[in-house]
Amino acid sequence: MWFLRVSQPDQIRPRPLAAAPGTAPGKFQIPEHARHPATVRTTIIDANGACEVDDSGDAATRVPTGAWLWVDVVGVRDERVLGQLADRFALHPLAVEDIVHAHQRAKVDHYEHHTLIVLRMPESAPLGRTSQVAIVLGDDFVLTFREHESAVMAPIHKRLALPGTRLRSHGVDYLAYAIVDVIIDEYFPALTAIGDRIDMLEDTVFERTDPNVAADIHTLRRQLVSLKRAVWPLRDTIAALSRDDSPRFGEPTHVFLRDAHDHALRIIELVEGYRDSVASLMDLHLSSVSQRLNEVMKVLTVISTIFIPLTFIVGVYGMNFDSAVSAANMPELKHPLGYPIVLGVMAALAAVLMAAFWRRGWLKSRSNQVGTHAADDSRSTAE
Amino acid sequence: MWFLRVSQPDQIRPRPLAAAPGTAPGKFQIPEHARHPATVRTTIIDANGACEVDDSGDAATRVPTGAWLWVDVVGVRDERVLGQLADRFALHPLAVEDIVHAHQRAKVDHYEHHTLIVLRMPESAPLGRTSQVAIVLGDDFVLTFREHESAVMAPIHKRLALPGTRLRSHGVDYLAYAIVDVIIDEYFPALTAIGDRIDMLEDTVFERTDPNVAADIHTLRRQLVSLKRAVWPLRDTIAALSRDDSPRFGEPTHVFLRDAHDHALRIIELVEGYRDSVASLMDLHLSSVSQRLNEVMKVLTVISTIFIPLTFIVGVYGMNFDSAVSAANMPELKHPLGYPIVLGVMAALAAVLMAAFWRRGWLKSRSNQVGTHAADDSRSTAE
Amino acid sequence: MWFLRVSQPDQIRPRPLAAAPGTAPGKFQIPEHARHPATVRTTIIDANGACEVDDSGDAATRVPTGAWLWVDVVGVRDERVLGQLADRFALHPLAVEDIVHAHQRAKVDHYEHHTLIVLRMPESAPLGRTSQVAIVLGDDFVLTFREHESAVMAPIHKRLALPGTRLRSHGVDYLAYAIVDVIIDEYFPALTAIGDRIDMLEDTVFERTDPNVAADIHTLRRQLVSLKRAVWPLRDTIAALSRDDSPRFGEPTHVFLRDAHDHALRIIELVEGYRDSVASLMDLHLSSVSQRLNEVMKVLTVISTIFIPLTFIVGVYGMNFDSAVSAANMPELKHPLGYPIVLGVMAALAAVLMAAFWRRGWLKSRSNQVGTHAADDSRSTAE
Amino acid sequence: MWFLRVSQPDQIRPRPLAAAPGTAPGKFQIPEHARHPATVRTTIIDANGACEVDDSGDAATRVPTGAWLWVDVVGVRDERVLGQLADRFALHPLAVEDIVHAHQRAKVDHYEHHTLIVLRMPESAPLGRTSQVAIVLGDDFVLTFREHESAVMAPIHKRLALPGTRLRSHGVDYLAYAIVDVIIDEYFPALTAIGDRIDMLEDTVFERTDPNVAADIHTLRRQLVSLKRAVWPLRDTIAALSRDDSPRFGEPTHVFLRDAHDHALRIIELVEGYRDSVASLMDLHLSSVSQRLNEVMKVLTVISTIFIPLTFIVGVYGMNFDSAVSAANMPELKHPLGYPIVLGVMAALAAVLMAAFWRRGWLKSRSNQVGTHAADDSRSTAE
Amino acid sequence: MWFLRVSQPDQIRPRPLAAAPGTAPGKFQIPEHARHPATVRTTIIDANGACEVDDSGDAATRVPTGAWLWVDVVGVRDERVLGQLADRFALHPLAVEDIVHAHQRAKVDHYEHHTLIVLRMPESAPLGRTSQVAIVLGDDFVLTFREHESAVMAPIHKRLALPGTRLRSHGVDYLAYAIVDVIIDEYFPALTAIGDRIDMLEDTVFERTDPNVAADIHTLRRQLVSLKRAVWPLRDTIAALSRDDSPRFGEPTHVFLRDAHDHALRIIELVEGYRDSVASLMDLHLSSVSQRLNEVMKVLTVISTIFIPLTFIVGVYGMNFDSAVSAANMPELKHPLGYPIVLGVMAALAAVLMAAFWRRGWLKSRSNQVGTHAADDSRSTAE
Repeated sequence: MWFLRVSQPDQIRPRPLAAAPGTAPGKFQIPEHARHPATVRTTIIDANGACEVDDSGDAATRVPTGAWLWVDVVGVRDERVLGQLADRFALHPLAVEDIVHAHQRAKVDHYEHHTLIVLRMPESAPLGRTSQVAIVLGDDFVLTFREHESAVMAPIHKRLALPGTRLRSHGVDYLAYAIVDVIIDEYFPALTAIGDRIDMLEDTVFERTDPNVAADIHTLRRQLVSLKRAVWPLRDTIAALSRDDSPRFGEPTHVFLRDAHDHALRIIELVEGYRDSVASLMDLHLSSVSQRLNEVMKVLTVISTIFIPLTFIVGVYGMNFDSAVSAANMPELKHPLGYPIVLGVMAALAAVLMAAFWRRGWLKSRSNQVGTHAADDSRSTAE
Repeated sequence: MWFLRVSQPDQIRPRPLAAAPGTAPGKFQIPEHARHPATVRTTIIDANGACEVDDSGDAATRVPTGAWLWVDVVGVRDERVLGQLADRFALHPLAVEDIVHAHQRAKVDHYEHHTLIVLRMPESAPLGRTSQVAIVLGDDFVLTFREHESAVMAPIHKRLALPGTRLRSHGVDYLAYAIVDVIIDEYFPALTAIGDRIDMLEDTVFERTDPNVAADIHTLRRQLVSLKRAVWPLRDTIAALSRDDSPRFGEPTHVFLRDAHDHALRIIELVEGYRDSVASLMDLHLSSVSQRLNEVMKVLTVISTIFIPLTFIVGVYGMNFDSAVSAANMPELKHPLGYPIVLGVMAALAAVLMAAFWRRGWLKSRSNQVGTHAADDSRSTAE
Repeated sequence: MWFLRVSQPDQIRPRPLAAAPGTAPGKFQIPEHARHPATVRTTIIDANGACEVDDSGDAATRVPTGAWLWVDVVGVRDERVLGQLADRFALHPLAVEDIVHAHQRAKVDHYEHHTLIVLRMPESAPLGRTSQVAIVLGDDFVLTFREHESAVMAPIHKRLALPGTRLRSHGVDYLAYAIVDVIIDEYFPALTAIGDRIDMLEDTVFERTDPNVAADIHTLRRQLVSLKRAVWPLRDTIAALSRDDSPRFGEPTHVFLRDAHDHALRIIELVEGYRDSVASLMDLHLSSVSQRLNEVMKVLTVISTIFIPLTFIVGVYGMNFDSAVSAANMPELKHPLGYPIVLGVMAALAAVLMAAFWRRGWLKSRSNQVGTHAADDSRSTAE
Repeated sequence: MWFLRVSQPDQIRPRPLAAAPGTAPGKFQIPEHARHPATVRTTIIDANGACEVDDSGDAATRVPTGAWLWVDVVGVRDERVLGQLADRFALHPLAVEDIVHAHQRAKVDHYEHHTLIVLRMPESAPLGRTSQVAIVLGDDFVLTFREHESAVMAPIHKRLALPGTRLRSHGVDYLAYAIVDVIIDEYFPALTAIGDRIDMLEDTVFERTDPNVAADIHTLRRQLVSLKRAVWPLRDTIAALSRDDSPRFGEPTHVFLRDAHDHALRIIELVEGYRDSVASLMDLHLSSVSQRLNEVMKVLTVISTIFIPLTFIVGVYGMNFDSAVSAANMPELKHPLGYPIVLGVMAALAAVLMAAFWRRGWLKSRSNQVGTHAADDSRSTAE
Repeated sequence: MWFLRVSQPDQIRPRPLAAAPGTAPGKFQIPEHARHPATVRTTIIDANGACEVDDSGDAATRVPTGAWLWVDVVGVRDERVLGQLADRFALHPLAVEDIVHAHQRAKVDHYEHHTLIVLRMPESAPLGRTSQVAIVLGDDFVLTFREHESAVMAPIHKRLALPGTRLRSHGVDYLAYAIVDVIIDEYFPALTAIGDRIDMLEDTVFERTDPNVAADIHTLRRQLVSLKRAVWPLRDTIAALSRDDSPRFGEPTHVFLRDAHDHALRIIELVEGYRDSVASLMDLHLSSVSQRLNEVMKVLTVISTIFIPLTFIVGVYGMNFDSAVSAANMPELKHPLGYPIVLGVMAALAAVLMAAFWRRGWLKSRSNQVGTHAADDSRSTAE
């Protein structure tokens, strides 16, 4: 009958299975068909500047003392690149596994030679989908592994190019913080989009009973559940980083991490507030559907209740009793004013019923409609 | 058809995006079009008095020992004023960012030279909207940054003018507390307004099925969600201030902070209680819509069930079977009392059906209405 | 149409505003029109006895060593009495403010010379309303401040008159405990009344669809929310008192306080259980309204489905096609058995439809009614 | 109309009032009419055996060193028996009060000479009702006070009769544990009964819309709320006992208490799981009621939509316009094939409408029924 | 009428009763009829290799120093095998009881000579059912007890056969971890199946009102409740193992356990997310049922409202008033254009009513249907 749009639910729901059960942990092996070449962008940074280098050769030897390295990898399906980096930076097998199986919760794992920070970042479309960003922070390097190309790191590259930026002067942990910060801030546009969608649905619910509204609300709920699932562990992760016992983040960076933690809290509160709004919207929609059913039924009842008795009356005088047999048989038909009297009686009956409905307010609602319809118009003008 | 009023939902929903993602943290830069001159009101306070000074010149030099300064800034879009204050009081860049991006959660941040307290204050209209108040507490100064002009600080200015007030004798931390206190107390009138709105809606639900009720309940829910989002972090902030390890608040002020904490708890309990009431109100509304549908359908069913069989009977005697052909063809039409007998049978049938409906209570409910309508009148008299 | 009773909702909802925002904390000033004389009842207690004294003079001098004083004040709107007591017992200004602004949450505040315990007590009517009782416990005195006269303290006065009571032998902290205990126990009758109301509503829901049921359930929910708001802080207050570090309660009294804490827990569990029952009751009511709509619609559908086709058939033979023109025009009318055959066909059709409805169980439900109606009778007999 | 069964709700709901408010705590006084003689069963246990003794005389003197006593009292309304035991074992007045006022929450109270453990045990009928069991554990005695006779202690008496049982070899604390264990295990049959009831209701909901279903679900919810109220404090009580600082339970018994704690956790999870199932069941019931309303309305709409236009057509040709006056007046009636043509038109119209309904799936659902009815049969065979 | 499928609810719901209440704890006795022979697979592992041995003889003597033993038992109903193992490895009686009564919550119990880890594993069918796996970890042995044969341990056996695996080099605690890991990973396929089922139901809800949808949603809810009940204690168990104070797990294994803990957290988040989706789906279903009722009622109302007045009009001119008696009696019938005029009036009335319905959007929704039906087709093509 009617069809409900869904904005690609299968793209929101994560495939829960990371690896086949029973696979040895800490192993990574990308099936042939899933491999995809990664792009690598390597930057050497020190207090004086930042320069991008071509990292095809033995780059490891070229990092001078006091400088640090940022290797930004896009794509986690390239066995060769991942293998090289794992060897060069002595990544822990479990860290590599978490980087490759990109369906992890946000978390922080401290290994002997480096710290792995896994975060989830909302994708621009579809709403509610998130992708993984893994950050490996070592003594003089930061590695970032992203699933897909996106513009999220562009502002950092731009800021690195500016002189006097804290990114150059504050050390490698501040770079890691800056990356965490841009990832968290990616949630705000996603939430703005969801907020706009809620506003739009609100208007739809107010104006008509669109069967798609329920489906849209359902989709919003799923998107918010998906964001919630990404954002709660994010908060805990940032909190863990900003605690004083986090080994690789120096005291000066802690105050910035606490700021990032605050942003994560605001995101959570927005998600929870939107979830509440969406639940309320569903109630509003259900109430509106019921209300409209009432309107429909009132129309049917008013029409039926007025005309069914009248139809009975005219039926009576359509009967063929033979008035010739006896004077008791339908003498009204012979009455000189029979027809006008019956018409009058029927008109009176209809008037009485109309009055009863008027007193009950069943007709007012319809006249009301006209008024509110006008209001509706004025509103759409005002907007 | 019918139109639902919403009290400006877009004004309640905060724009979640503080700054463009990727902006360097701790930076503030107000776009040209958004700048707005701020008004500054500077007061020098000591145990003997409080005098307002014109702070256009080099005011920083004029604060005598034992006195402290209160700079009350309205408007956070004035780059010049904010820059001057940031320089003069050595504000931390992150603190300045939090002051300018006025969409922070309530929080307290301890910096080396000052403590930043961010609070949210309900605006007088629309209900549920909140604006930010940032308080910077230093060794001998308190800065307050408000988004909009409002009367909230007036009582403090008035009390400062009185001799013997604790505001003069208790030091700079007590002044900060007093400002926190007036901000918290601003929630009470907002909650009173919401409570009154709930009472009003309750009466509406009881008396008629107004389609706007559902929209109004939805708006109330959103306003309460918005207040809740403001008030929960507020409580944690006050709790953090009133803990004994808070560096800038002396022991004598702690007892007052605990009192403010108690007020925050009461606000939270009121918000939660109202949320529960509003949820219950929605249920009541839905129940009332269903109930009224029942009423409508009973009317239709009673009328239809009585008249449809009668209409069938009169239809039978309107058939044109030729009684001349055979005596089996509609002999009733020739019966001398055919018509009165049929009328009598129909009257009896109608009476039986009416009695059946009466026993089921379907007619009573209508007579009931009259009774309750009277009760309704008596109630409106009693009020 | 129909009208829903509400048991004075405005009396349940507390006025959230304690004092005008911006008033200096710790100040009390009762507006002229709100003043109301308080009644004061002073008792001097020692291990040997308890005697009530007229406290108009300088009573403070008359308390002998080893004795303690109980001043029971009813009414918190008497500036003179409160002022005198505040001076005499050196009450902290914040304590006095909490006593006067009688809308506090239950709490305990330890001041240097005394401990303030604020509790809320359910009023006998309307259900769900609570009033404040403030208890000030000093070294040798207990002050109690109640909003209204009630019988709640009568048992303590009676027990004080008995010889050998723990109230005389256990010291001033035990007296404070005893007062806390009677206040907590006041919740049980209120909860019994709510439990009875739930039982009554349950019977109403089972027996008929009373539109007032929904309103009554809503009122119950609000009353329970109100009690919940009073009782949760009460529990925390008693827990704070019964902790070992509470300075003014001796070890022997701790075991009694733990007992009181247990009572508070039971009250909370009852309130939560009743809230669950009331929510379930609303579901039951909604289900019952829907069920009855089904019944109504089944009646309408059965009647319509049987008679509408029959009415069509009799309509066919009421048509006036001229059989004189052609033999194809309504030959049935000329058939000698046309009328009985049509009647028979209609009877058969009606029987077939009835059988179909019977198989679907739409008619059984009505016969069912008779059976359950009998059960209903037997039940009302059994009760 | 229809009547909803309730399984004695008043027997589930506890009377919340333990004692009249204001009664001195730690006092017990059983009103004359409520007294009921208790039965006492005393067993002396040591490592070698267990013998039941007649405890009418001064049994206290007869307990040899290394042995311990179990006094199992059924009935808490016997002032004489309780008084004797209280004196003999030096029970704390508050402990005695808790034993007599048998509406306590599960709890553990450590007194100087003994530990009081209060537990609640589900009664066999009605479901959801619980009775109190108080266990007093002293240095060489265990007292148990039950409200009613039941078979719960029988297995312990039986095991005591066996040689080599841990009950004999592990000391008095193990006996107390064993009693706690049998009481906890009593919840499993009660939960099995509730699980069976849920399964039964599920089948009912699937097969027909029985108005009693809603009432039965409501009753189940109340029973589960009642069990929940009993079982949550039970868990905390067992946890308190199994903590290492519990004074009267030796290290060897701790491992068993942790096992009992695990059972309590499983009971809580089952109760919570059942609560969720019951809530889901209510949704299913409401959905099923709505679905059936849809079915009913489809039947009405199909029949009405087909026959109401047809009835209009036959009504047209039942009009009495005088064709003698003008050829424009109902010439169809004079047409030689007028009647068959009209019948054909009506048949075609009905066919078109039927086809439209078929395409919408409104008729399929009925044919569907037959199929699912068959499935229903096959299911009932398969079971 | 219609029948709802349920996927064997009785197989999901666990039998809550482990043992008859009152049975001595720590005892195991398998009733004759329930016994079932177990299969035992014994492997001796050291750094150099792993060999499976036939363990019918006195295998205990054959474990060389530096090697460890894995005994994998399938079936917990074999008294002989369990008795032998209990004796040989000195299992604590409570551990044996927990192994045999295979309805435990996931937990870890540290005994003197070994640690018992109880986990629950989802079965492949029916969804939501779980079976118990008990792992006993000693100094040089791991015992696993499973209820049923399944392929879950196959990957471990396979990995043991590989040279250079951590399973050989990391010691007995790593083997225990590996077993825990494969059991946790078993949840992912179960959750994928549930996710697919949710997607499928979503499509069903969008496309038609299948009465089975509600039942399927209910079944999903029960399955998720069942998984939730299994998975929450699992998380706590893994957390307990990965804490540093867990005695039998060495530091190197802790990092792997933390990884397993992370997997458990992801499972919990997926279960909670699915629960939310399923709840939203139920709302969507209810909304869709209501929406369709609206559609049905609109059809009925449009048809009735148009034809009932028309039928009344034709009824009027079917009356038999005798126009011969007076000119007032139905003069229209004699009018030369009476019939065409009446037909015209009726057509005009129908057109007006149709226009009114069109403006209300009641007809648009039907035309809309055609459009969305096309969209539906395109969608099914696109997929």
